Amino acid sequence: MPVAVSSPAAPAARTTNAPTMRALVKASPAPGLDLIPDRPAPLGSTGRPLEPGPTEVLIRVHKAGVCGTDRHIYEWDDWAASRIPVGIVTGHEFVGIVEKVGSACTRVTPGTRCSAEGHITAWADYNSRTGNAHIASDTKILGVDRDGIFADYAMIPESNVWPLDPRIPDRFAAVMDPLGNAVHTVMAAGVSARTVLITGVGIIGLMAVTVARAAGASRIYATDTNPARLALARKLGAAAAFNPLPESKGGDGDRWIDAIKRETRGDGADVLLEMSGSPIALDQGFRALRMGGTAALLGIPSRAPTFDLTNHVVFKGATVLGINGRRMWETWYQMENLLTSGRLELDDIITHELPLAQYRRAFELMQSGEGIKIVLDLNGPTK
Amino acid sequence: MPVAVSSPAAPAARTTNAPTMRALVKASPAPGLDLIPDRPAPLGSTGRPLEPGPTEVLIRVHKAGVCGTDRHIYEWDDWAASRIPVGIVTGHEFVGIVEKVGSACTRVTPGTRCSAEGHITAWADYNSRTGNAHIASDTKILGVDRDGIFADYAMIPESNVWPLDPRIPDRFAAVMDPLGNAVHTVMAAGVSARTVLITGVGIIGLMAVTVARAAGASRIYATDTNPARLALARKLGAAAAFNPLPESKGGDGDRWIDAIKRETRGDGADVLLEMSGSPIALDQGFRALRMGGTAALLGIPSRAPTFDLTNHVVFKGATVLGINGRRMWETWYQMENLLTSGRLELDDIITHELPLAQYRRAFELMQSGEGIKIVLDLNGPTK
Amino acid sequence: MPVAVSSPAAPAARTTNAPTMRALVKASPAPGLDLIPDRPAPLGSTGRPLEPGPTEVLIRVHKAGVCGTDRHIYEWDDWAASRIPVGIVTGHEFVGIVEKVGSACTRVTPGTRCSAEGHITAWADYNSRTGNAHIASDTKILGVDRDGIFADYAMIPESNVWPLDPRIPDRFAAVMDPLGNAVHTVMAAGVSARTVLITGVGIIGLMAVTVARAAGASRIYATDTNPARLALARKLGAAAAFNPLPESKGGDGDRWIDAIKRETRGDGADVLLEMSGSPIALDQGFRALRMGGTAALLGIPSRAPTFDLTNHVVFKGATVLGINGRRMWETWYQMENLLTSGRLELDDIITHELPLAQYRRAFELMQSGEGIKIVLDLNGPTK
Amino acid sequence: MPVAVSSPAAPAARTTNAPTMRALVKASPAPGLDLIPDRPAPLGSTGRPLEPGPTEVLIRVHKAGVCGTDRHIYEWDDWAASRIPVGIVTGHEFVGIVEKVGSACTRVTPGTRCSAEGHITAWADYNSRTGNAHIASDTKILGVDRDGIFADYAMIPESNVWPLDPRIPDRFAAVMDPLGNAVHTVMAAGVSARTVLITGVGIIGLMAVTVARAAGASRIYATDTNPARLALARKLGAAAAFNPLPESKGGDGDRWIDAIKRETRGDGADVLLEMSGSPIALDQGFRALRMGGTAALLGIPSRAPTFDLTNHVVFKGATVLGINGRRMWETWYQMENLLTSGRLELDDIITHELPLAQYRRAFELMQSGEGIKIVLDLNGPTK
Repeated sequence: MPVAVSSPAAPAARTTNAPTMRALVKASPAPGLDLIPDRPAPLGSTGRPLEPGPTEVLIRVHKAGVCGTDRHIYEWDDWAASRIPVGIVTGHEFVGIVEKVGSACTRVTPGTRCSAEGHITAWADYNSRTGNAHIASDTKILGVDRDGIFADYAMIPESNVWPLDPRIPDRFAAVMDPLGNAVHTVMAAGVSARTVLITGVGIIGLMAVTVARAAGASRIYATDTNPARLALARKLGAAAAFNPLPESKGGDGDRWIDAIKRETRGDGADVLLEMSGSPIALDQGFRALRMGGTAALLGIPSRAPTFDLTNHVVFKGATVLGINGRRMWETWYQMENLLTSGRLELDDIITHELPLAQYRRAFELMQSGEGIKIVLDLNGPTK
Repeated sequence: MPVAVSSPAAPAARTTNAPTMRALVKASPAPGLDLIPDRPAPLGSTGRPLEPGPTEVLIRVHKAGVCGTDRHIYEWDDWAASRIPVGIVTGHEFVGIVEKVGSACTRVTPGTRCSAEGHITAWADYNSRTGNAHIASDTKILGVDRDGIFADYAMIPESNVWPLDPRIPDRFAAVMDPLGNAVHTVMAAGVSARTVLITGVGIIGLMAVTVARAAGASRIYATDTNPARLALARKLGAAAAFNPLPESKGGDGDRWIDAIKRETRGDGADVLLEMSGSPIALDQGFRALRMGGTAALLGIPSRAPTFDLTNHVVFKGATVLGINGRRMWETWYQMENLLTSGRLELDDIITHELPLAQYRRAFELMQSGEGIKIVLDLNGPTK
Repeated sequence: MPVAVSSPAAPAARTTNAPTMRALVKASPAPGLDLIPDRPAPLGSTGRPLEPGPTEVLIRVHKAGVCGTDRHIYEWDDWAASRIPVGIVTGHEFVGIVEKVGSACTRVTPGTRCSAEGHITAWADYNSRTGNAHIASDTKILGVDRDGIFADYAMIPESNVWPLDPRIPDRFAAVMDPLGNAVHTVMAAGVSARTVLITGVGIIGLMAVTVARAAGASRIYATDTNPARLALARKLGAAAAFNPLPESKGGDGDRWIDAIKRETRGDGADVLLEMSGSPIALDQGFRALRMGGTAALLGIPSRAPTFDLTNHVVFKGATVLGINGRRMWETWYQMENLLTSGRLELDDIITHELPLAQYRRAFELMQSGEGIKIVLDLNGPTK
Repeated sequence: MPVAVSSPAAPAARTTNAPTMRALVKASPAPGLDLIPDRPAPLGSTGRPLEPGPTEVLIRVHKAGVCGTDRHIYEWDDWAASRIPVGIVTGHEFVGIVEKVGSACTRVTPGTRCSAEGHITAWADYNSRTGNAHIASDTKILGVDRDGIFADYAMIPESNVWPLDPRIPDRFAAVMDPLGNAVHTVMAAGVSARTVLITGVGIIGLMAVTVARAAGASRIYATDTNPARLALARKLGAAAAFNPLPESKGGDGDRWIDAIKRETRGDGADVLLEMSGSPIALDQGFRALRMGGTAALLGIPSRAPTFDLTNHVVFKGATVLGINGRRMWETWYQMENLLTSGRLELDDIITHELPLAQYRRAFELMQSGEGIKIVLDLNGPTK
């Protein structure tokens, strides 16, 4: 029973009688997260707990994916310390059920199984109003800028809800947010009947391998410094996967660039999907891209890199696409098509499902590299 | 020995001394084709047999595909009678080897295994000079407007030659022309992560099924009145295949349109590939297309149809693409990527390979429907 | 004083005390419209007059454009009789001021000068959620399917409101709906540095001339059977304007097609904007379009025409775009850019501004051809 | 008499009797160029002077534009020293007349007035064969990698010749190469009904102002550190032009970025055309670009800059296009449309026409900034 509505036998709660819930909270400006058993349930714009305002919906969370962003918050790195308000409920990837809807809601009804877009906008600016709300100027992110979904309940705008096709299982629905990053990157670049190089096969990079294959890439190449990830990339459909470390460190050095060129008439890959944020990968990736090719950049360099714009972009006649989030809602429809087509292989990427109470183990599995994508189950055993 | 270059010991040839070759010729304005054993070998712009002009190449033909166009010429229907010059060597789909190249050729060398684009242009007009030579205003077609390639030798401009990747087997290389029609249609429409309806699964429609699947279509639907073709469409990857004949005639009537809508949120297919030329299929196809969808039209109605432009195009906000030939050379590169990726299944579509001498059987197999795509082998036994 | 809130001296109103307003109403299933002085003011979803529901806004209308659609309703033709509910308030093009906003409105505040998109959707379907709400499956149109804006007040969803840049004058703001049709057609086709043929220069066709010029068309050609419209098209920037009637009837016959080809290297126009709905114009327009050109179809044939798909679309390799409404909100932003750039010439197209009470004269001016676009002023003298 | 065919009175020439011509030659690895009066006339692939090979044409040069590249060669900077073979005839922008054509030429005839694309390719690689020959892997540039056109005669492939529309005057035809850079940049980015920021208004930047205006930009903003260029940008159609130098140095500092945002709903410009190569301009330009905007990069930083990929590209969701040369031949057709439309204002950009013999003055005018684009006239007085 996730919501501990206080009973007559619970004197401490008598005074407030306010409903509470479990939540993973950033309780202090330090590493770690706390599982709070009695976080006050979310207020709607009504000011009343569990009561959505006219355009809000209340969602009961069932499963939630753990994101790299959550790990940054857990580890409390510089970015997290500068961005995250202490006290916030974390998490933004989930599947759940709509419990209540506001008076002016038109699309969603109680009982709807759903995921949701975690980028919240007022639908007022240019991008919000032209199909590109994912890069709206006024975006607030669930679990980053406002309370998120590692909790029994979440209150979000109806306009952010994504009703789920019944053919999509819960564990996949719980990770549609990062899957959307991969799908947006792949679809923005355009991979159909093209050769594709993916530099960096972490969670999203691995998803991009299976997405690119399902979306029609002719041959996929991947690079990473983690041999297990390279092996998984091959299993998911990469024609070849390379370690760009120097040969002295057991890698393939630069030879892989020539290998790709040999397989592509000497030209290089048609498409580069940069998913590592590494300046070295960025440089190598552009060298392996053919003249006139397309590069989609998702990875975030830790600081502004020195970048050979002249040769990599200008002389190459390249098209470079910055990828941020996922398109609302073009990407979600594409995900629906891909997930219901049976052509995506996510089972090897979602390595663990754990009950909420084992959230610390989830982060440890990510830190050790043993886990890739981990899903927390809020309905599972609490011990 | 295909070319009977006359020897000193062959007195009859002394007078002319001109080399000859086998060729399938439209010898008279009537149904049928004749296999001529001693057709004079092609002249280059030099005026000399087998001697290419500066920008020409001489090709030894190995295998050749039989096209629906060839069948029109064989059957001598109204179109053929109005277009085809009597005496012409027919055929335009092939694989062969370059034997000689002209003095100003720069790309191709003797010994190159190749296919070729059958649309010949002077590269002088707007479309030729902007990547769309397939719709040039001055196009002459091999085997239609000038001598084709059902013959031991063909003389064509170097600029039309397509050198072949060694990973592409001869029997596939021999049918790259019609495969190019399918690829151009699929790629122009854009099928990646989309639902696709193909109306008409003859040779090119069936190729379009496997191409669309390899190019990333999420779900493919097909219609045809031929149950065997529908079964093959399913085998090649169609999620469902329907017979649009009325239920009284054993078909599915219009119910299939609702079936597609049920699988697509009520919207209809994202993409229509019209490959039948049937006005009924055209009308049904647009009804099954979602608002804002894309239709690529390859099929040729036998005469101008009544077409509900208002509902099918204007109100629907549809994008309609006329598809003619295949892009030079974007489509050929896409074919190379698709064929070398191992994702195309053509073996069930190329039903027969026959020696040249059995060309009449090839046309009979096409007419009976027993054969789909048939390849003539010029190196096979001549009896 | 637009709203006739009943006074004590008005006995008939005593019983209800409900606010009323002036409105142009389709009062009976017959030609004509009635100017009702005491139409009950619009109810919000609250059920109370002049009180918007949470996501609604109340607008005080200042000026309103008269559309060809309004003329159909006025004349009560077959289309109108089959579509329009008797009793409806007509009109959908306007400029006004927001008077009240609902409790959940986030973008608009009272006092905002605005126009609005007349297509109302629940933002629930594929097209609504991907930047193409103009072709949503559940669209209701102001003044066609529900009460419109030829009235002192209108109640519409906040999501349909377009706040106006102060640089745009009221009389232009009042016609942004039809201007949006022209802009959507021009921008969808893409006219930058291209030659453009516009067949049919009625209101929207004339707007398309000045829009195409401002949007970068290199040369614009126009056709129409009305010499005054042809003259105006030339004044607005058309390089040439032709009368496609036969020479025996004083027109240019087909010679204009050759004239266009002579000016375009023999190729024909890059772009066709079909704005007449005439099957003859459609056929001529496609003949004057170059191979590989783009045609955007806005005109509505009165019934399904016979259309030479084979030559006009398939062999031509044409791209044909169905144009319906205007994109929400891409087109509106484009209009804002165009209107604030000072590059649109609308003054010759908006031929008359009349007080609301003279609405019959407005329709007569349209019927006689003396007027082109006419704007009704709700603040003007009522006599 | 441009070709100094040696006369009997010139004993030194008796032995060879080879035709010669005037030519501007890089005679030694040092600053400067020499006007050689008796450069041997160009050999065709025939090995004979003035005799084109089968696919070559001989052109008599009339006027020639002086490019920034020529200035690099004249000044013999590091780039020039590393790239330019000593002894080469320089120059690549021109208008002239075809004098002779090779035996296999099909498009061009003697007497054709023409310009030409200076990028020479074998039309063998992917980009050459798909409409993007401007970024072919095997490009040789006239006047850079092989003899150019600052000479009475030039021998080039027929495939590089651009026959001129008679409506285009010689002095404009002589500068179609740099104009093509501007047109390619503008058209690749897409400026129709958009706001455009051009950072750097040297020769090509100024051309881009008038091109962007003719191609439909709604408002154009320009930046440069040269006040005279800013004034000219305004005259050519820029809505505002800013000096990005710090206020302490008489510039506008960063305030201009806010000025642009104020005029664009707070968003920033839709399009950035970077034409300076300055890392500061690059950084400022991206800051002034709206989320989701498009940047086309033509300017070449002198070395790889530090570039804030994260904020300028990834988070911004920007599209970045590398611009190299001009598309063969899409850009040339666009230029033809623009030049014949009368919408380009080049007269203020072509500041000087000088006889060939005054080439040194041409470079001095460029160096002092007094001249912008300078055209050398080979038919003018030789003193």
